[in-house]
Amino acid sequence: MSLSEFDRDTAVTLREPGVYDADLSGGWAIGSALNGGYLLATMARALGDTMPHPHPFTVSTHYLTATAAGPATVRAETVRAGRTLSTGAASLFQTGPDGREVERIRVLATYGDLATLSEDVRTAAKPPEMPPYEHCLGSEHAPSGSSPAMADRLDMRLDPATVGWAVGAPSGKGEMRAWFGLADGRDPDPLSLLMTVDALPPTAFELGIGGWVPTVELTAHVRALPAPGPLRVALSTRNLAGGFLEEDAEVWDSADRLVAQSRQLARAVRG
Amino acid sequence: MSLSEFDRDTAVTLREPGVYDADLSGGWAIGSALNGGYLLATMARALGDTMPHPHPFTVSTHYLTATAAGPATVRAETVRAGRTLSTGAASLFQTGPDGREVERIRVLATYGDLATLSEDVRTAAKPPEMPPYEHCLGSEHAPSGSSPAMADRLDMRLDPATVGWAVGAPSGKGEMRAWFGLADGRDPDPLSLLMTVDALPPTAFELGIGGWVPTVELTAHVRALPAPGPLRVALSTRNLAGGFLEEDAEVWDSADRLVAQSRQLARAVRG
Repeated sequence: MSLSEFDRDTAVTLREPGVYDADLSGGWAIGSALNGGYLLATMARALGDTMPHPHPFTVSTHYLTATAAGPATVRAETVRAGRTLSTGAASLFQTGPDGREVERIRVLATYGDLATLSEDVRTAAKPPEMPPYEHCLGSEHAPSGSSPAMADRLDMRLDPATVGWAVGAPSGKGEMRAWFGLADGRDPDPLSLLMTVDALPPTAFELGIGGWVPTVELTAHVRALPAPGPLRVALSTRNLAGGFLEEDAEVWDSADRLVAQSRQLARAVRG
Repeated sequence: MSLSEFDRDTAVTLREPGVYDADLSGGWAIGSALNGGYLLATMARALGDTMPHPHPFTVSTHYLTATAAGPATVRAETVRAGRTLSTGAASLFQTGPDGREVERIRVLATYGDLATLSEDVRTAAKPPEMPPYEHCLGSEHAPSGSSPAMADRLDMRLDPATVGWAVGAPSGKGEMRAWFGLADGRDPDPLSLLMTVDALPPTAFELGIGGWVPTVELTAHVRALPAPGPLRVALSTRNLAGGFLEEDAEVWDSADRLVAQSRQLARAVRG
């Protein structure tokens, strides 16, 4: 049985204690930049191997400089090992043009065991209202040649109410919604959720901001082991100001459980 | 001119490059624990001294073990110095009972200069609807002896719609709202905003969860220099599940600007 694309491309190899090698894949690029969620998931895989607890509970990611496809080193350490929660830190490095290691991304994360959480669920939030999968729009509807490489890794269909940007008519509302899965059918898990929160087109597109909207920082909470099957992802932005915006993501699984939430601070380079 | 309480109690002294001494004040305690936002503000002051940019833009904080009043060491370093943004890391240590240094809190933060942000504000969010200050409830209304030490540092008045918990009738809605200032009249600034996002009674109280609701992780975005005068703070929780909850905070200034947003993951120890 071969690995899914996501597992193959986020794989890390232990070189020595706390040091992992990764071969980052251009298959997860948006334009010339590798997707931030894909990079986070790769680092989180290394952390999960290092830490005494298996699952990311809350992960804070600061993106320093753009990461290229190709070799990378992830250094991961446990900062505190608790009984039910542990905290660790990880850094992703690549060799710069002068041969020196440059830190691209730093992560601070607290891990636990999602399988041990109580069954008491009092979530007040409701799943996003969206048309069924069959009435949402996949990348085959996008203008020819406009889809990023990463789109081929995904089975993603956008809510038609959030695709005005693709035809030059952005809604002006900071929203984006999609049905979400992996193209090769791999079911979601805590690591893939870290990629999922950063995988949709940005709300900035519906706010009329084209071009590059780089993530400065992203914090994701993984709140439950996701059920198999398709996810629904809803993004929202309420505070576009001063050249920056926050983008909140909610990920709902097929059992209507709110399995992940995130917020990122992004820079609107061109408004 | 004497320092305000907040500046006096978050002061740090440079001992050697990257190493700061702090004397943490029990005046910012909630019960036996020092308030997480107060501790974050102290660490952020050290980072602001170390980093090439003055203001926290996005700060991610992982709380490892409880911090006591008294001496503490903050180690702060710049991880990347950019043109408009820099990223740094900080750790707060205290000496444990065996004489060894124990790390209590680790922070990862990206700083910039809020004074250089563009004036383009397209915030879609609206300030919270609350009664005027005069119709909100200060701590003098709280049951005798029940207010934490920190309450004396603050000029905080709670929205009557969010104080049911104080009379044994929690609303069941994960909300908390208050007018907010410092008791000695000090105007808000980026550092005090980091304390402000964690200064209200927790939404957990209105959800009927009493007792200790420790913060596992808190990420705060400071989005603008706040105008002088009173702030309005609104908290909301939508995903109480599995023994954990997220708590979002918005801080609005007197000019109706959304100056800070945060989200924390907290543990509901007793449900």
